[in-house]
Amino acid sequence: MGNTEYEIQQRFEVQVPPTKPFFHTLKSSLKETFFPDDPFKQFKKQPISRKFLLGLQYFVPILEWAPRYTFEFFKADFIAGITIASLAVPQGISYAGLASLPPVMGLYSSFVPPLIYAMLGSSKDLAVGTVAVPSLLITSMLGKEVNPHQNTKLYVQLVLATTFFAGVFQAALGLLRLGFIVDFLSHATIVGFMGGAATVVCLQQLKGILGLVHFTHGADLVSVIKSVFTQIHLWRWESGVLGCCFLFFLFITRYFSRRKPVFFWISALAPLTSVILGSLLVYFTHAEKHGVEIIGHLKKGLNPPSLSELETSFGSTHLMTAIKTGIITGVIALAEGIAVGRSFAIFKSYHIDGNKEMIAIGMMNIAGSCTSCYLTTGPFSRTAVNFNAGCKTAVSNIVMATAVMITLLFLTPLFYYTPIVVLSAIIMAAMITLIDYEAAIHLWAVDKFDFVVCISAYVGVVFGSVETGLVIAVAISLLRILLFVARPKTSVMGSISNSTTYRSIEQYPKANSVPGILILHINAPVYFANASYLRERISRWIDEEEDKLKISAKNDLQYVILDMSAVGNIDTSGISMLEELKKTIDRRCIKLVLANPGGEVMKKLDKSKFIDTVGQEWIYLTVGEAVDACNFMLQTCKPKTKAVESEAADDKV
Amino acid sequence: MGNTEYEIQQRFEVQVPPTKPFFHTLKSSLKETFFPDDPFKQFKKQPISRKFLLGLQYFVPILEWAPRYTFEFFKADFIAGITIASLAVPQGISYAGLASLPPVMGLYSSFVPPLIYAMLGSSKDLAVGTVAVPSLLITSMLGKEVNPHQNTKLYVQLVLATTFFAGVFQAALGLLRLGFIVDFLSHATIVGFMGGAATVVCLQQLKGILGLVHFTHGADLVSVIKSVFTQIHLWRWESGVLGCCFLFFLFITRYFSRRKPVFFWISALAPLTSVILGSLLVYFTHAEKHGVEIIGHLKKGLNPPSLSELETSFGSTHLMTAIKTGIITGVIALAEGIAVGRSFAIFKSYHIDGNKEMIAIGMMNIAGSCTSCYLTTGPFSRTAVNFNAGCKTAVSNIVMATAVMITLLFLTPLFYYTPIVVLSAIIMAAMITLIDYEAAIHLWAVDKFDFVVCISAYVGVVFGSVETGLVIAVAISLLRILLFVARPKTSVMGSISNSTTYRSIEQYPKANSVPGILILHINAPVYFANASYLRERISRWIDEEEDKLKISAKNDLQYVILDMSAVGNIDTSGISMLEELKKTIDRRCIKLVLANPGGEVMKKLDKSKFIDTVGQEWIYLTVGEAVDACNFMLQTCKPKTKAVESEAADDKV
Repeated sequence: MGNTEYEIQQRFEVQVPPTKPFFHTLKSSLKETFFPDDPFKQFKKQPISRKFLLGLQYFVPILEWAPRYTFEFFKADFIAGITIASLAVPQGISYAGLASLPPVMGLYSSFVPPLIYAMLGSSKDLAVGTVAVPSLLITSMLGKEVNPHQNTKLYVQLVLATTFFAGVFQAALGLLRLGFIVDFLSHATIVGFMGGAATVVCLQQLKGILGLVHFTHGADLVSVIKSVFTQIHLWRWESGVLGCCFLFFLFITRYFSRRKPVFFWISALAPLTSVILGSLLVYFTHAEKHGVEIIGHLKKGLNPPSLSELETSFGSTHLMTAIKTGIITGVIALAEGIAVGRSFAIFKSYHIDGNKEMIAIGMMNIAGSCTSCYLTTGPFSRTAVNFNAGCKTAVSNIVMATAVMITLLFLTPLFYYTPIVVLSAIIMAAMITLIDYEAAIHLWAVDKFDFVVCISAYVGVVFGSVETGLVIAVAISLLRILLFVARPKTSVMGSISNSTTYRSIEQYPKANSVPGILILHINAPVYFANASYLRERISRWIDEEEDKLKISAKNDLQYVILDMSAVGNIDTSGISMLEELKKTIDRRCIKLVLANPGGEVMKKLDKSKFIDTVGQEWIYLTVGEAVDACNFMLQTCKPKTKAVESEAADDKV
Repeated sequence: MGNTEYEIQQRFEVQVPPTKPFFHTLKSSLKETFFPDDPFKQFKKQPISRKFLLGLQYFVPILEWAPRYTFEFFKADFIAGITIASLAVPQGISYAGLASLPPVMGLYSSFVPPLIYAMLGSSKDLAVGTVAVPSLLITSMLGKEVNPHQNTKLYVQLVLATTFFAGVFQAALGLLRLGFIVDFLSHATIVGFMGGAATVVCLQQLKGILGLVHFTHGADLVSVIKSVFTQIHLWRWESGVLGCCFLFFLFITRYFSRRKPVFFWISALAPLTSVILGSLLVYFTHAEKHGVEIIGHLKKGLNPPSLSELETSFGSTHLMTAIKTGIITGVIALAEGIAVGRSFAIFKSYHIDGNKEMIAIGMMNIAGSCTSCYLTTGPFSRTAVNFNAGCKTAVSNIVMATAVMITLLFLTPLFYYTPIVVLSAIIMAAMITLIDYEAAIHLWAVDKFDFVVCISAYVGVVFGSVETGLVIAVAISLLRILLFVARPKTSVMGSISNSTTYRSIEQYPKANSVPGILILHINAPVYFANASYLRERISRWIDEEEDKLKISAKNDLQYVILDMSAVGNIDTSGISMLEELKKTIDRRCIKLVLANPGGEVMKKLDKSKFIDTVGQEWIYLTVGEAVDACNFMLQTCKPKTKAVESEAADDKV
């Protein structure tokens, strides 16, 4: 390694990035935090009238796409809308039961919210409706305070309040650009959580399938199993047989649809078919007198306004519970709606603005809570059917709402004889697909920590409660981030096939380490949480390297190069650590060299004067240059270094 | 860029690190988490008897260094020990007052714990004693439940229980290797927290200085100010004048010691001098009859055993509060003790094992709680005096304990006339140095976020309570880590002076971007918390780049290179994000290229088959190689790319 080469390569100094005024930095980092998608981009350099129009279109997207709507689109949307309506009616009734609400509220919820979403939503595929997990959550959280069967009126009022607060919370998250809170529900959390919730919902259906009258209010495995097996003498075989038959029917239709995607409608129409078949069966055999429970009278007519109910609930002593339930169910519903909307948008390659979607979903729930609807979002099953049926725009939601309206106006008496057990079977069949054990296996294969998160969520939901599972999973996910920072990976680097590229020896076992120089790669920002760890760990690396050199009787260790490429940031505790480290290794007559510190790090090292402590000449742009410089010094200045060492040794004695 | 060069450089494939069995990985990551300092290293390859001896020496370090102890050392330790004793007596009495305890307990606490620490501790400089902030915390937390003046016996019992649980918690943290919890108190948190606590303690001293009899139990600024100014008519000018004189004396001596470090003893002896002067003054002028409160009778004799008191307290209804107080004060005392011990160890370049120190401090508090002592640790002021007085080993603690013992046995009557106002002045003078406004200014200059943490801790302590301040500061510190991961920095890279080194254009404004290729650097692990952000942000970079290219009518954007050097890890949400990203940019006819993914990332990309999706041939060891390959493709395959693009365009229509 010649003098010339070393000097040529050293030309380029590591730079402190140009300083910017404080408020500029603050503004840009706030912008990155809250407006990463730059929603104002389109407003730039436009006249005011145009800005107003764009703003209106931003909040009410239908204004943007309606003028371009064609009859071709309508034909597609009409078919899709009718298809999802056939799913919406039985599902609506079933999920209302899950939420311990009058069945007709499930139908109400498929009328008003879809209309609102069609105006405000930006997804072309999302089909609006009620969902199982939040429905269950409502029962389990509110049911603890008010018995839904004994005190139905108060319970319904509280559910409306819950829906209202969920909507307000959702819209507020969107307006305050806090949509990223939903991101903290990781993929693994959602897999585990959904699986757990589906298990719990399935277990709850044992009540309907076995025709039990009394059932536990607990949603956990233990109390359900106890409730089922202490009542063996009350099981109704008629109900059980009917339930199993319909379950089988639903599974077989799904199996066919899965085999050939063209037959998606078989599985889409299966729930409605089951309801019709079941109702006819009960009507003709009078099975309702033999232990098969039926829905009974369904109120005819459109959604009654519920503003006064909502108002009454605000004075209730249970309002705090309603708010808490609203926030939790609101977040979960949001996570599902946004994840579903985004997945299908990626499929069709258009863009969805998460925060805008939150506002749309929030507004539809606020409107819903004033018109006797309960919590709605974009369920995966219904949206998938909508997509498969070839929907083009949100008009399919309008078509569905119209179909539900007609049902409400004229067809409710037809559901009188519909057996509850069929509804249970429909829920069970829908839920079992949510238990995604394949995803869990995939998590285990790819990322053990994600698997732990997933299983904790599952176990927490099944054995504890839905909230417990959620809290545990989120806590473990956050712990992972903290652990990543608290225990960053450090690794020794070596040169790849003697080039100037240096990489971790762990990843590239053939990389060659450089005699007399220890090159360490740090893998995370140097923060208070890892400063002492890094001090210990780096000292240990140095000790180990010196031991190794002692055994092989090679040169002494003279240089420690810290590769800072992956150190994204540093705080004052981190800088103190570096200062201490420098002192410690100076005493051991080892020189500290930095390679490739990033912009943020350089800024802070500069302001804290650590650059002067290390010396700008000991900070290099690449590890290669640093090694070359050290090698150059090793060859030319050896006697001097030795002298310093013996001086220092005197000092110690 | 010729074909040959491209092929030569492409030789080295990015490798998936060699797979290790699951339990091996688990073991090594648990080891890194809990045993980063490798404490078992010295035990390796030793016979059992030697292992036993080493183990004993590990837990009782005095066995290790006592045999090497010399008379030379003792001379130094004796002088240091006498010096710190002269500080320990007045400070002990003062801080006991701060904790609302009988003054003599402060002396007890400087007798037993230092002896225990001398045997178990590994620091050569730490001087053991009580500290102001935990003393204040004890008053404010326990005082809420039990009035220390009306129910002294119960209060003392609870303080002993608090000390016991603090000791148990400290020792448990050490034994369970959970010492890193202390690391979560960042430098900035401690600066703000200490400053706030010092402010609060100073405010409390207004009671003594102004000679007030009734005073608020609140520790916050508002209630203290209110308490002081509603009692203006009760202020005693004699007390005030005396207090100001002593404060002035203490400050002037400190000023001299600061000017010339050789005169450290002037400031070290000042508190004892003040006590003697104050006592003499009161004795001769009978000022106690003119509004100057005095200590009064101090019990003679050594520490009485307090096991039975401790036992009684375990049956108390306030036990939970004692446990809570113990844990909080225990952590704070630990943080101070360890930080102090470590700082001086670095000065003298020896090593301190944090977990071992925790066990030592914990044991000394457990022993203390059985012998009428309250919470002790290694206070900064006393340790600094010890260090300056030239202590060599922990024997200086034994000398101090002996001096305190003599005081307890024979000299307590001398403190009868000591005015309380002198003690207040001693506390105030000690506390004011803890308000480290220079450090706060430094934080502002170096790291704004740390400044926010520091100020929040300060404001929280001063206007809320000590716990509030601590919780807020820790929460903000953790939020910072989460924000770092949730909003990672992405930046465009360019080549440095046309070499193969690529760096962020933000840091090196002169770096040249490469036409047709967008190189993006990601600065943090790709986790669930940032997956959607990164998707949005990368799309925005691509949009902006395309807009720029459109305006300049240059080549289309053909390649996006993601520099993964700083991506320390990835989880399954992150992998899904990359998959979606690839789909999205594939549709835009842009090729995704990865550069330098690390070991962990490669492992997971491999297991999730994402490597196959991207193609191993599109993953490069360095950004330089990736750019060369893309440039090579741009020059040779242009027509083909264009064809693909127009095909895709057809597809879209």
